[in-house]
Amino acid sequence: MRVFNFSAGPATMPEEVLRRAADEMLDWQGSGMSVMEMSHRGAEFESIHDEALADLRDLMHVPRSYRILFLHGGGIGANAIVPMNLLGDKQTADFVVTGSWSHKSFAEAQKYCTAHVAANGKTGHGFTHVPPLSEWHLSNDPAYIHLCTNETIDGVEMFATPDVGDTPLVADLSSHILSRPMDVTRYGVLYAGAQKNIGIAGLTIMIVREDLFDRALSICPSAFEWKAIAANNSMYNTPPTYAIYIAGLVFKWVRKQGGLDAIERRNVEKAKLLYDAIDSSSLYINRVERQSRSRMNVPFFLADESRNESFLAGANARGLLQLKDHKSVGGMRASLYNALPRKGVDALVEFMRDFEQKRA
Amino acid sequence: MRVFNFSAGPATMPEEVLRRAADEMLDWQGSGMSVMEMSHRGAEFESIHDEALADLRDLMHVPRSYRILFLHGGGIGANAIVPMNLLGDKQTADFVVTGSWSHKSFAEAQKYCTAHVAANGKTGHGFTHVPPLSEWHLSNDPAYIHLCTNETIDGVEMFATPDVGDTPLVADLSSHILSRPMDVTRYGVLYAGAQKNIGIAGLTIMIVREDLFDRALSICPSAFEWKAIAANNSMYNTPPTYAIYIAGLVFKWVRKQGGLDAIERRNVEKAKLLYDAIDSSSLYINRVERQSRSRMNVPFFLADESRNESFLAGANARGLLQLKDHKSVGGMRASLYNALPRKGVDALVEFMRDFEQKRA
Repeated sequence: MRVFNFSAGPATMPEEVLRRAADEMLDWQGSGMSVMEMSHRGAEFESIHDEALADLRDLMHVPRSYRILFLHGGGIGANAIVPMNLLGDKQTADFVVTGSWSHKSFAEAQKYCTAHVAANGKTGHGFTHVPPLSEWHLSNDPAYIHLCTNETIDGVEMFATPDVGDTPLVADLSSHILSRPMDVTRYGVLYAGAQKNIGIAGLTIMIVREDLFDRALSICPSAFEWKAIAANNSMYNTPPTYAIYIAGLVFKWVRKQGGLDAIERRNVEKAKLLYDAIDSSSLYINRVERQSRSRMNVPFFLADESRNESFLAGANARGLLQLKDHKSVGGMRASLYNALPRKGVDALVEFMRDFEQKRA
Repeated sequence: MRVFNFSAGPATMPEEVLRRAADEMLDWQGSGMSVMEMSHRGAEFESIHDEALADLRDLMHVPRSYRILFLHGGGIGANAIVPMNLLGDKQTADFVVTGSWSHKSFAEAQKYCTAHVAANGKTGHGFTHVPPLSEWHLSNDPAYIHLCTNETIDGVEMFATPDVGDTPLVADLSSHILSRPMDVTRYGVLYAGAQKNIGIAGLTIMIVREDLFDRALSICPSAFEWKAIAANNSMYNTPPTYAIYIAGLVFKWVRKQGGLDAIERRNVEKAKLLYDAIDSSSLYINRVERQSRSRMNVPFFLADESRNESFLAGANARGLLQLKDHKSVGGMRASLYNALPRKGVDALVEFMRDFEQKRA
């Protein structure tokens, strides 16, 4: 009996991907081995890896001038890996702070450069909007401009790609990669931890424009140096092979759903259902400005916070799990990743109405 | 139909661990979720994590003054992570080079300090022995002394722990962790990638004596800073949760085998079978000195190298897979990790005799 799992990550996966992984666990396609047991340098794993790369390239329309790298280290690792690879001889990088994650990226970069906050979306009610480009104060000659295009904790999503000229844009897509089409060519670097829309924690996907490969600092660990990783087709060290296999199964699943256009339509519908339920109630509150509301992560508060525990217990009883928000914020959060089915949102909305009326 | 898999890593796993993982893939113990889908901050995953930690601590007799950390980054990542955490205000670290892996550790450390080769086991025939402590030339005041206690590529194992006084010993155990008891208290830091005796690539285990926590360089990425990771119980960032779950299942399996004493007895027998077969033949050659021969990784050459392809094809036909050695060495390599059953070694030895006689 499967539940509806609203975790922000690691997060719900497509059931058919899990079934396939279970079926192949002891013997992948007649090889007599689990994918976990395969040498990363053998023909079997090579085919899994190449197919995952090709499917992701196809889904996101990644041009040939970009390399897709599979790394260790997660999103927090990337906060150091990006400046160590991208600063070159520059001293400054710019950060647009729209929530907890972009703030972490900014704070970590201070280890390696003068990290400059070009704009900050924080208000009295926390992070509630994306400051428009007209309000950004960029530095003179930053190595790059960093964005987090979906803030998992704060529920703030950036839908428009700002036009910043030739300075490379770096975007952390961790919590909304593959949720909708994006124009990769507008960015220098895109990265995402896999554990939301792609699969298993421990895999980081980086999409890097090749002309940015020669800017690594000498202190950058070899295991995280883009150029070496690309030259070795992500096999400079042993990559997280099983996570790459699962990612590949998810990419096939996304293609089967109709690709990113179809996925986006479903995600728009799912998010609208939940935000409409919140906005039409007097119990539930989401303070993010409408045009910046995340389709993936919907944080909300109860007007009467003394009912939080009762809300969570009631949701659990209906098989609606992991709705408690990040400890740093409090309240609730429903993550509506690609793999969360529409009927999961229906069930949540129904429960929320019932819970509100019971006490009205 | 399962094969015998001699891969050096990722490597063969206990079949019952794979069966359990397959059985629980869609629903871990009635939770309605796969372990892959669980928030790392939820009670379910916390219990998996804590149990894995406790079992590993018990198996290796890790004292309370050491912390066990689950990290990203693999062994090659660790080559940078260790100096960045351990140099403190010292400028030098010493390296005993006994094969390809310790040489890599030495080369990477040069990014962060004066890395000094205290001893080098390379001879005209490659790496064939562990230089005795009496031949080491240690520097005056090194931050630490680094060893690779089992060289996966060269098949050189260090069985005695050298007495180096108060300087912290750091050992890379990647390819023989859990293969035999070790006295953890003789080391400052022990680390291992999981993809040989523990499970899935993408998880690195570090065992660190707590008094070494205050030596991190300011450039050390937060995601890899031991003190922060320990303070957050390996949840500073999202750890590789599924790999931790699989590691936990393997730890239970090792306990069920009788713990490390029993495992060692089996490993001694398995290795003896194969080395005896090599030494009693005129076709197969292993040049490592007997007292330094690895129980886990047995590289060997054919006296007639023109027969290499035919050897591998014949082995494959009998379900003996992944015997081709690392591309940097050539020849063959049979890895005999804990999960490789004795009957796999029997089958290999039988094939080797048949292959030799067919042509004799």
